[in-house]
Amino acid sequence: MPHRIIIDTDPGIDDALAFLLALASPEVQLEALTTTQGNVVVETATRNALSVLELAHASQIPVAQGSMFPLVQPLYASAAVHGESGLGNAVLPEPKAQAISQHAVDFLIEKVLAEPGEISVFPIGPLSNIALAIRKEPRFAKAVKQLVIMGGAVREGGNMSPLAEFNIYVDPHAAHIVFHSGIPITLIPLDATHKCLVTRADVEHINEVKSPIARFVKDVLTPYLDFYEANTDFGGSALHDPLTLATLIAPELLTLQELYVDVDIHGGVSMGNTFADFYQIARKPANMKVALDVQGRKFIELFVERMIQLSRKIQD
Amino acid sequence: MPHRIIIDTDPGIDDALAFLLALASPEVQLEALTTTQGNVVVETATRNALSVLELAHASQIPVAQGSMFPLVQPLYASAAVHGESGLGNAVLPEPKAQAISQHAVDFLIEKVLAEPGEISVFPIGPLSNIALAIRKEPRFAKAVKQLVIMGGAVREGGNMSPLAEFNIYVDPHAAHIVFHSGIPITLIPLDATHKCLVTRADVEHINEVKSPIARFVKDVLTPYLDFYEANTDFGGSALHDPLTLATLIAPELLTLQELYVDVDIHGGVSMGNTFADFYQIARKPANMKVALDVQGRKFIELFVERMIQLSRKIQD
Amino acid sequence: MPHRIIIDTDPGIDDALAFLLALASPEVQLEALTTTQGNVVVETATRNALSVLELAHASQIPVAQGSMFPLVQPLYASAAVHGESGLGNAVLPEPKAQAISQHAVDFLIEKVLAEPGEISVFPIGPLSNIALAIRKEPRFAKAVKQLVIMGGAVREGGNMSPLAEFNIYVDPHAAHIVFHSGIPITLIPLDATHKCLVTRADVEHINEVKSPIARFVKDVLTPYLDFYEANTDFGGSALHDPLTLATLIAPELLTLQELYVDVDIHGGVSMGNTFADFYQIARKPANMKVALDVQGRKFIELFVERMIQLSRKIQD
Amino acid sequence: MPHRIIIDTDPGIDDALAFLLALASPEVQLEALTTTQGNVVVETATRNALSVLELAHASQIPVAQGSMFPLVQPLYASAAVHGESGLGNAVLPEPKAQAISQHAVDFLIEKVLAEPGEISVFPIGPLSNIALAIRKEPRFAKAVKQLVIMGGAVREGGNMSPLAEFNIYVDPHAAHIVFHSGIPITLIPLDATHKCLVTRADVEHINEVKSPIARFVKDVLTPYLDFYEANTDFGGSALHDPLTLATLIAPELLTLQELYVDVDIHGGVSMGNTFADFYQIARKPANMKVALDVQGRKFIELFVERMIQLSRKIQD
Repeated sequence: MPHRIIIDTDPGIDDALAFLLALASPEVQLEALTTTQGNVVVETATRNALSVLELAHASQIPVAQGSMFPLVQPLYASAAVHGESGLGNAVLPEPKAQAISQHAVDFLIEKVLAEPGEISVFPIGPLSNIALAIRKEPRFAKAVKQLVIMGGAVREGGNMSPLAEFNIYVDPHAAHIVFHSGIPITLIPLDATHKCLVTRADVEHINEVKSPIARFVKDVLTPYLDFYEANTDFGGSALHDPLTLATLIAPELLTLQELYVDVDIHGGVSMGNTFADFYQIARKPANMKVALDVQGRKFIELFVERMIQLSRKIQD
Repeated sequence: MPHRIIIDTDPGIDDALAFLLALASPEVQLEALTTTQGNVVVETATRNALSVLELAHASQIPVAQGSMFPLVQPLYASAAVHGESGLGNAVLPEPKAQAISQHAVDFLIEKVLAEPGEISVFPIGPLSNIALAIRKEPRFAKAVKQLVIMGGAVREGGNMSPLAEFNIYVDPHAAHIVFHSGIPITLIPLDATHKCLVTRADVEHINEVKSPIARFVKDVLTPYLDFYEANTDFGGSALHDPLTLATLIAPELLTLQELYVDVDIHGGVSMGNTFADFYQIARKPANMKVALDVQGRKFIELFVERMIQLSRKIQD
Repeated sequence: MPHRIIIDTDPGIDDALAFLLALASPEVQLEALTTTQGNVVVETATRNALSVLELAHASQIPVAQGSMFPLVQPLYASAAVHGESGLGNAVLPEPKAQAISQHAVDFLIEKVLAEPGEISVFPIGPLSNIALAIRKEPRFAKAVKQLVIMGGAVREGGNMSPLAEFNIYVDPHAAHIVFHSGIPITLIPLDATHKCLVTRADVEHINEVKSPIARFVKDVLTPYLDFYEANTDFGGSALHDPLTLATLIAPELLTLQELYVDVDIHGGVSMGNTFADFYQIARKPANMKVALDVQGRKFIELFVERMIQLSRKIQD
Repeated sequence: MPHRIIIDTDPGIDDALAFLLALASPEVQLEALTTTQGNVVVETATRNALSVLELAHASQIPVAQGSMFPLVQPLYASAAVHGESGLGNAVLPEPKAQAISQHAVDFLIEKVLAEPGEISVFPIGPLSNIALAIRKEPRFAKAVKQLVIMGGAVREGGNMSPLAEFNIYVDPHAAHIVFHSGIPITLIPLDATHKCLVTRADVEHINEVKSPIARFVKDVLTPYLDFYEANTDFGGSALHDPLTLATLIAPELLTLQELYVDVDIHGGVSMGNTFADFYQIARKPANMKVALDVQGRKFIELFVERMIQLSRKIQD
């Protein structure tokens, strides 16, 4: 039986690739997308989510639009990395489908409470929607099966400040609510995602199949690769969001450690720092499993393989 | 035409007296109560709201239950001041009416958006519900007529920490969201409420009328007066929450100043401090009117008079 | 017997006027000046201190140069208010005397420890020197008679941020050390100094005497009055620093309250806020007397009278 | 020519071993010890420093006593780890020599300014003295050759809080001053020291030589090993302070990275966190070299060898 998941997302290049990976993976049943601000404003996030689903012939999957703003911080939208559209060079047609009318927060609550213990939520953007769901309906925390979160930087440095990773930086208060909610969490931080580096050769390999999916992968990844080349010496672009799915499709690649992890919301230089209590000095029980390492190349190979399969399957 | 208001509340002794004052005042049309945690847990708040309405023969007024927890901070409930029940010595029968099934946040959003510019909301507890409404539905901020908030301490010292007043202390992040929402706000801080001191003589004066209302006023205020006598040299008990209604029923008693007011959410000794930029050093526009002074005795006299009228009117 | 004092100072217009008031007051014996950064860099502070003493025929009073930098914060020097020279339009000749070679911190320690309980220190700039003296020689705190500090804003708003007054803002960590040192402190905050407003008429009145002192008072106060006129509606310029001397020459004008006062050093919007625990919520003993009010006009009249006396006495 | 160094220290078990390693190393000329609070109060630190020098027949080396208190934080003294005496089970006779009368801060300033560029300072306790020296005499920063600091935890977790290492935790404001002083710094954080683990077998190996030095090493390390065994699964005790000397006696064992490192002094959960800007997001130049890795076993072997040599050389 495939794992039933909802992806909560702000697409965003690697978000879109995470949808495609979910759709390409028989281990996963993607039940819905819920959108939030982050890489783009929420309206763009919703449009992108609908467009990518349409591209992948998956318009039947509902999309619910969520938070326009982070909980407490002012709005941030990162056009510099993900392009104005949020999807790099990819030009997708205006989607035919529409988002459902229900607010993402209510959709998440209803869906999760309808079948307690069944639905896993994969937040791969700022945690605003999840935090609002927890606060509006405290039973949400007990009913959701688990959260697999892309976010944070534990031993690794941040990408928005010396200590903070983007998703946490944008809405640290939401992260604080989520981390202390009691929900089973697996965290996929930069410590792992910075080791999952897709290269131009990988993109070309996928594009040996001629198909709209392969072309889309190239169109979104090309400016993303340019950005990484200009700003890092990584030798590739980190596939942050798709790596969350490794917990379902290739868990053996991840090195997970049970830890107490907190996020600093006191402002100042540490705002949004996600830190682990490695030596249990605060004497608090572990609140999540953290991916501190990953066999990154193997995950990229799996990603490429799945993209090729999907590219073959979905032909216009 | 009376002012149409919803009171958002955590009853609480002075909250209950605010309901009674609203019901006793022809200038005001109380359309609903929405409940939150604060002086008591939210379930008790809801029960108390229903009970007081029943006591006042006003069970037709809907009560919607809201947030169980502050946004980010852990739950606080102040049994020490308001008694286990939240209503001092008053023993009210189990209410016959029930809260409506809709969540307070959705009720507030729906009610306010249905008639933009018509409804004023009077938050007299922690601002959790209002903040959630603003974040879940950004149009709420444009549609609500105004907020009249009991909370904060500007020049005055706090009552929960040297700098923080109870309602703000319990949910400072909610206050931050509300203060920066663009909604027209009148703030009634301790600077004003500490000058509205009800005395045992006032309570006796009300009780010259023999009625359930008068008896209730005495039952809730007696331990409250004891508490103030033991802990302050004020010479009476501050009627914090009822004073919000002065904005509608006796605005001439209040000295309001337009100011930019912010709340510190950085943690540490200043957590929950509500401070004004008196000399416009931050060069930000005023975001509220603040009651820095009040003709307190005159307000108390008005309160006593209205309680006597209500006591006469409502007889079992 | 006159009170023996050392003024620790960053002259600064009102600092210079405080020296003159001390020299004009038989109740006070000015034993030394120690200099620090603040209104100006420390070298300018030292030069100004020497120059003003020379102007007042008091070159025998030693000047010791102190801290070049605040303890933790980066250097701040406020040319906008006090002019490049720190003394407005006044052009004083290069002083003939020099500062002593001993560091102000060592001078303060040596002087105070030589006669325990005899010397009062009047810090009217940032508290850097005093904090360093306390930390370098813990016995300093027991040996100094008292500190009379110009600094802070308690109920009043700040002048550097909505919450912080200049002297505390420049070196909040030093203020934290001093406030918690156990030394008897009288604090003269903006709450009092904003009521001591010198006017152009006062300046003219002093200048009815023709003398270098009167002329100097006019030269330093004219741009200061311009600044206040442009930036406030006070109707005069606040004589912050001279007011510290009211504790010795006119204590009946001050309303002092014993309070526990702390300073926020957590960064963010409250950095440098000096706040009182008016209702003893933190249950800590009072650590200072705070001047929350003053008969400001009477103090100004006394200041004018003493300036006239000094102007008459000191003629070139 | 040996490197001329002053060790600034709060002995402390591993501090004492650092002195012995310096004395055992021909590459190093130990010119003085300056003491501070930290593992013990400063008076005990001074006594211990004198005693260990006497044990090693090095009483000619001057000891100057320094700061009794951290700059801003209240005093902390960690009897739990280092024993009441600070030196575990070792019972050293009352030293015959005395500390010099000059304050450590003045001694450091005088010594370093006398021969600019010649003296390296090795702070292996809280940085209170160094910070005071920098602030009292700004030329100190230019004249000192370098600082080699034991302190901090960069990728590694802290040992006093989830984020803070002891020396920084005790006086984070001092660390902030030092890190931003412009002095060339090499930082030896827990990232490296947690890989330098001395074992009971190492201690026994040293004790094959019968001598007071070998016995002392055993007496101080036995309770230290007990502590690590009870509280960690490291399999040995970290030789934090001696590792600083690797920069002079075995630099090839250290992996140093040039980084911009800052320390959080905003209070809250991140107080005292030393963090690096690995991806230069803050665009600030590197302010230190950081030992992120070390060939720990090789360093321990070198330490053991040197202790054996010293044990042979110093016989009563």
